[in-house]
Amino acid sequence: MKKSERNIVIPVKDGRRRVVITGVQPEIDCGCFAIKRTVGEKVIVEADIFTDGHDALSCILLYRREEEAQWTEVPMKFLANDRWQGSFVVTAMGRYYYTLRAWIDRFQSWRRDLTKKVGAGQEVKVDLTVGAEIVENAGEKASGEDASRLKEWAQALRSPQELSKSIRLVLDEETAAMIARYPESQSATTYEKELVVVVERTRARFSSWYEIFPRSCAPMPGQHGTFRDCETRLPYVSAMGFDVLYLPPIHPIGRIHRKGKNNIPAGKEDEVGSPWAIGSEEGGHKAIHPQLGTLEDFRRLLTKAKEHGIEIAMDIAFQCAPDHPYTKEHPEWFRWRPDGTVQYAENPPKKYEDIIPFDFQTARWRELWEELRSVIFYWIDQGIRIFRVDNPHTKPFQFWEWLIHEIQKDHPEVIFLSEAFTRPKVMYHLAKSGFTQSYTYFAWRNTKWEITQYLMELNQTEVKEYFRPNLWPNTPDILTEYLQMGGRPAFMTRLTLAATLGASYGIYGPAFELCENHPREFGSEEYLDSEKYEIKHWDIQRTESLKDFIARINRIRRENPALQSDWNLSFHPIDNDQLICYSKQTEDLSDLILVVVNLDPHHVHAGWVELPLSALELDPRQPYQMHDLLSGARYLWTGSRNYVEVDPRIAPAHIFRLRRRIRTERDFDYFM
Amino acid sequence: MKKSERNIVIPVKDGRRRVVITGVQPEIDCGCFAIKRTVGEKVIVEADIFTDGHDALSCILLYRREEEAQWTEVPMKFLANDRWQGSFVVTAMGRYYYTLRAWIDRFQSWRRDLTKKVGAGQEVKVDLTVGAEIVENAGEKASGEDASRLKEWAQALRSPQELSKSIRLVLDEETAAMIARYPESQSATTYEKELVVVVERTRARFSSWYEIFPRSCAPMPGQHGTFRDCETRLPYVSAMGFDVLYLPPIHPIGRIHRKGKNNIPAGKEDEVGSPWAIGSEEGGHKAIHPQLGTLEDFRRLLTKAKEHGIEIAMDIAFQCAPDHPYTKEHPEWFRWRPDGTVQYAENPPKKYEDIIPFDFQTARWRELWEELRSVIFYWIDQGIRIFRVDNPHTKPFQFWEWLIHEIQKDHPEVIFLSEAFTRPKVMYHLAKSGFTQSYTYFAWRNTKWEITQYLMELNQTEVKEYFRPNLWPNTPDILTEYLQMGGRPAFMTRLTLAATLGASYGIYGPAFELCENHPREFGSEEYLDSEKYEIKHWDIQRTESLKDFIARINRIRRENPALQSDWNLSFHPIDNDQLICYSKQTEDLSDLILVVVNLDPHHVHAGWVELPLSALELDPRQPYQMHDLLSGARYLWTGSRNYVEVDPRIAPAHIFRLRRRIRTERDFDYFM
Repeated sequence: MKKSERNIVIPVKDGRRRVVITGVQPEIDCGCFAIKRTVGEKVIVEADIFTDGHDALSCILLYRREEEAQWTEVPMKFLANDRWQGSFVVTAMGRYYYTLRAWIDRFQSWRRDLTKKVGAGQEVKVDLTVGAEIVENAGEKASGEDASRLKEWAQALRSPQELSKSIRLVLDEETAAMIARYPESQSATTYEKELVVVVERTRARFSSWYEIFPRSCAPMPGQHGTFRDCETRLPYVSAMGFDVLYLPPIHPIGRIHRKGKNNIPAGKEDEVGSPWAIGSEEGGHKAIHPQLGTLEDFRRLLTKAKEHGIEIAMDIAFQCAPDHPYTKEHPEWFRWRPDGTVQYAENPPKKYEDIIPFDFQTARWRELWEELRSVIFYWIDQGIRIFRVDNPHTKPFQFWEWLIHEIQKDHPEVIFLSEAFTRPKVMYHLAKSGFTQSYTYFAWRNTKWEITQYLMELNQTEVKEYFRPNLWPNTPDILTEYLQMGGRPAFMTRLTLAATLGASYGIYGPAFELCENHPREFGSEEYLDSEKYEIKHWDIQRTESLKDFIARINRIRRENPALQSDWNLSFHPIDNDQLICYSKQTEDLSDLILVVVNLDPHHVHAGWVELPLSALELDPRQPYQMHDLLSGARYLWTGSRNYVEVDPRIAPAHIFRLRRRIRTERDFDYFM
Repeated sequence: MKKSERNIVIPVKDGRRRVVITGVQPEIDCGCFAIKRTVGEKVIVEADIFTDGHDALSCILLYRREEEAQWTEVPMKFLANDRWQGSFVVTAMGRYYYTLRAWIDRFQSWRRDLTKKVGAGQEVKVDLTVGAEIVENAGEKASGEDASRLKEWAQALRSPQELSKSIRLVLDEETAAMIARYPESQSATTYEKELVVVVERTRARFSSWYEIFPRSCAPMPGQHGTFRDCETRLPYVSAMGFDVLYLPPIHPIGRIHRKGKNNIPAGKEDEVGSPWAIGSEEGGHKAIHPQLGTLEDFRRLLTKAKEHGIEIAMDIAFQCAPDHPYTKEHPEWFRWRPDGTVQYAENPPKKYEDIIPFDFQTARWRELWEELRSVIFYWIDQGIRIFRVDNPHTKPFQFWEWLIHEIQKDHPEVIFLSEAFTRPKVMYHLAKSGFTQSYTYFAWRNTKWEITQYLMELNQTEVKEYFRPNLWPNTPDILTEYLQMGGRPAFMTRLTLAATLGASYGIYGPAFELCENHPREFGSEEYLDSEKYEIKHWDIQRTESLKDFIARINRIRRENPALQSDWNLSFHPIDNDQLICYSKQTEDLSDLILVVVNLDPHHVHAGWVELPLSALELDPRQPYQMHDLLSGARYLWTGSRNYVEVDPRIAPAHIFRLRRRIRTERDFDYFM
């Protein structure tokens, strides 16, 4: 244990180190965890930096890539109330470090005081000689032209007859900038921590996910789908505009205690079982379910997907069926009960007899961890770069922190999505432990107040630094009440929200686009005849399919950089609680998307939107054009309050792109 | 520099350490600084504690005095949302440490799951044998009666015929409590920091200060007052109810550049100068100004004061007059200018030629620090235990952190008051560095909104953990606009606010009680003919003096423990912006003080107070009595809304004490 309070480091090493650096942001849990960025993004660092007395300060932000020994220095600017700010752009994947340094700037203090004294008409002869010393000090560090100019200036400061020249030089910004290159930073304070940025590829921030069960992709009902069948589905997925195709586990499925249709405990012999019950005599986490095809087929699918601009995401479920080879090869990785049986998964009184968890309390935890790491490496070798991790919250946080770090050390391009639907602090801690993206509570946020509060928490608080939300309106486990009851308009509403509120989102299809909404029973969020336990055959060409709508939404996402980032979201008032209004824009405001969604799938709603014109750089006296990218319609708006009306039977939302330039008579050549 | 992110401590030491402890409160700046308490106060510690999976946790708070090797363990209780809480009471001055420990509680997990299974009517035979192992493990650690009882219970769990007995035992709280004494905490997580509490005496929290210039205490006008004259003033100060008497510097005053009346730069020969221009041929910081008396006189004053229940607070101004002995003995502690003169204090274009600051950038900083520490020790030897530190923000933070720690190591009873009127973060950082109490912006907070916001910041945020406010309506440097314009009622209002909002407050007298309100010039906060530069003679018996009002207020403070602490302040709505309403109460609600102050010194104001009855444990259907401790009047109030009217010409406030017991006919012996 370490005494944490600073008092105990007495005796003090350097009493002249007078500058304090504190309140650094971003800094997660005292620097225990990294912040996250994608390539090309900016890191804005702020800190409270101050000293005793009235001296002027110089503050710099330092950053470097892990591979680099040298720090790059960035001057920080003073904001207000002792707060300073600096920033840098991360340009490569991997880890960056950043820290801060500040010192008392004798030259700036002197220059500021002298300026005041000159302004007050005070005698400054001695002050000029004081300045001469400072300039000489700088001159000693300089060389070349700088050295001779500084020497010359020091001489001027010492010559009473050159008083006005000296004073002019003091006030000269260029001279000041030159002196700043030779700082007296012996007693500088360096912030005691080096903070970390994990930089990932763009898809970590902006991605559109589509989940299907490969075994349900066969052309004929009743057949077991294969990877080859998945290939034929790629054009369909690509046409909808998705760039990640996520497959539930593709490994051999256990036979012991295999679940039957609708999760019935004692499945019959011919049941297909749940793909999450991994492992049988046919192999475990590094094997492929024979009915899906061969490893060769799988690699071919990856290649074909790439041709369609699609990446395959693999499911990682670190758990075993009772007949997984591990249970025989490594019985020490499981918890055995006094009766000689192995402890299956349970959450009393619920039992999951087809699944047995690893016992992470095992004395052989290290071998277990290493084996699990080898699973990831195995699939990386096959070409996988995205892993969707099943129930990470039932494995130790330390394990994930270690695993993700181990993988990203060699493969910074690997993306991990955390599938944890659990308590908020646990979900956030998993994200801190390294997960690239995380599932969220979005599925259960339906009212305006709920959506606003939740998205503000995700995007406007410190959470944004480490938790990248991936918004899913449905999953094979989650058919929400809202979708069950709202019909097709509800599916459109939820898709629009997910795709425009979140830079990353996903759907479980074809259930979603076909608006499948029958629960197993009233009050349940499970699908009736769930694909988790049986093979389904979907008629993806049904006319009521949302595929074209989805394709349009995904095109809007691709074409508008404003929708490709999470932090730029702001909500705007609208005087109808069934309508929600928000905007996203690029930093330079060149792309601005305003979304109005009708949350009520049953009725037409109308209301007055209120926009902050000055923040959007709109002239309150000039009209501007709102182009609805969904319907194609264009509206002329003026001022901050404008009317909208949304009919869920046509489209549940407007997705406006702001078009700034509206012609008036003043634009005519011959005006004036 | 240290890499701060945890990832780099890979390889992981113990992968089975699955519990996370984070979000610990209180914890100042990642544990860099101590929190503060006074003897008898409670430390309530909260943290987010959680693990992966569904296991039950045991969490304990550990604390110890610095002198103790052994930790005391306190079980923590679960609040909600993964938040746990524990507390301990500090009973002695000095330093305490606290930290946290948590582990997976196998017994509790098993007991909870078994209870659910039994409830669901599931087969639990194997589970009972699992439990037997856990109980046996505990039994091995136990001895005596516990050991035999645990053995007996394990046997029962293994005997199928004793099923119902076993289950009854599982549910028995007493058995569970016994098992908890023998935890399996091998893979416990201990919080990585030991956090510090600095515990001071009660006066650090609750104190009433009175500042006078000893040289103005002479019985006859024109005479220079002495310590003996101060003695004769003690009964007066004591009658007003003050317990700290603070004297501006009592050292010899420099003659070079001595300031004249009203701070005129070139003082005449016979001027007395500013006591803050310390040091002359007659001595420096360890000497006494000859005109005040001898060291013997000073020590006698301390003794006499004690007899009146008053402690003398000494002014520590670490700066020198140009003729201070240090300037000759230690020229290396000052900054010399190229013309051979020493750098005097300035804040351009303002000059303070009678004061020269120490150069804390000196290479001999260590000797300087040690000498300054010896000054404090010298006065401690004379009996001083309270120091009011002048302008600490113009000396390095590290210096104060070191100095206060050095002093309190041997003398935890020594109190330091920080007189820093500067930017908020600098003031807060001084408090973090160790100052017991701090001056505040109170003098400039006059409206209801300003007062509410500021006091909430001080008492309801993390600031309360390290910053103890001392509220002063005036000082020799601060005669606020409000006091200048509001006449006698303004003085009463500000005194009432200071004394009831703050557990510690002070006034500069007799200027305050005599309602002295003439500024040097319009727009200035300096007093006209300020005592800082001349001897004054005050007629303390003037009829319009507030001394009796002050005595009454201080008696109310002494008699009501509710007013002796800062954190228990809450503001209540009142429908008139010139009236402010707030309450303070003891934890057990036995003492509840409700204050209503009229902030407008010119007009009568009335309004409806709104009280949170349930929080105050008041029955909404029963009347309660409000006893105005200022006027002696008693009012019967009912329900949450009640009417008040405050006439500033009579008294600017009500200070109600809630009297709960009101008799009704049901209290008669013969009722029913």
